[in-house]
Amino acid sequence: MDYDIVGYIAGTLTTFASLPQLIKSMKEKDLRSISLPFVITFTTGLLLWLIYGLIKKDYPIIVFNILSLMFWVPITYLKIKETLSKKLI
Amino acid sequence: MDYDIVGYIAGTLTTFASLPQLIKSMKEKDLRSISLPFVITFTTGLLLWLIYGLIKKDYPIIVFNILSLMFWVPITYLKIKETLSKKLI
Repeated sequence: MDYDIVGYIAGTLTTFASLPQLIKSMKEKDLRSISLPFVITFTTGLLLWLIYGLIKKDYPIIVFNILSLMFWVPITYLKIKETLSKKLI
Repeated sequence: MDYDIVGYIAGTLTTFASLPQLIKSMKEKDLRSISLPFVITFTTGLLLWLIYGLIKKDYPIIVFNILSLMFWVPITYLKIKETLSKKLI
């Protein structure tokens, strides 16, 4: 049996899990309980995973991380914006 | 040159990124801006990644996902607890 399917389901879950988070954050414009160091470090890590996938020509890693970045770059942007706006008040 | 180091740095970043999130959530006991479907789906995905790693005997996948689960299981628990307590009010 080919167990690769388990990896594809796992990757689909950990990737698309972030879609409801992005929708919630965009809708509510409230990210107070999300950690700034978390989103910055996580998004940087996703970018490094993408670079790793490109070096290794590993297409599942490339595709999953491009998708994840599409969710986490805007979340990170919203969190940085919220943090800066609070510091300015 | 061995590019595996890029993967290890990427995995370390995406894994340990979650530590400040766990600390913040435990300290503030506020997870309102974190999405319930996100944490449940993400944690389920991490568990599947762990199963995949065990099947493939891929030790970096096993180690990174055990660590991630150590951060995300308590975050998920706190989020479910918060959601249930709000529904009871």
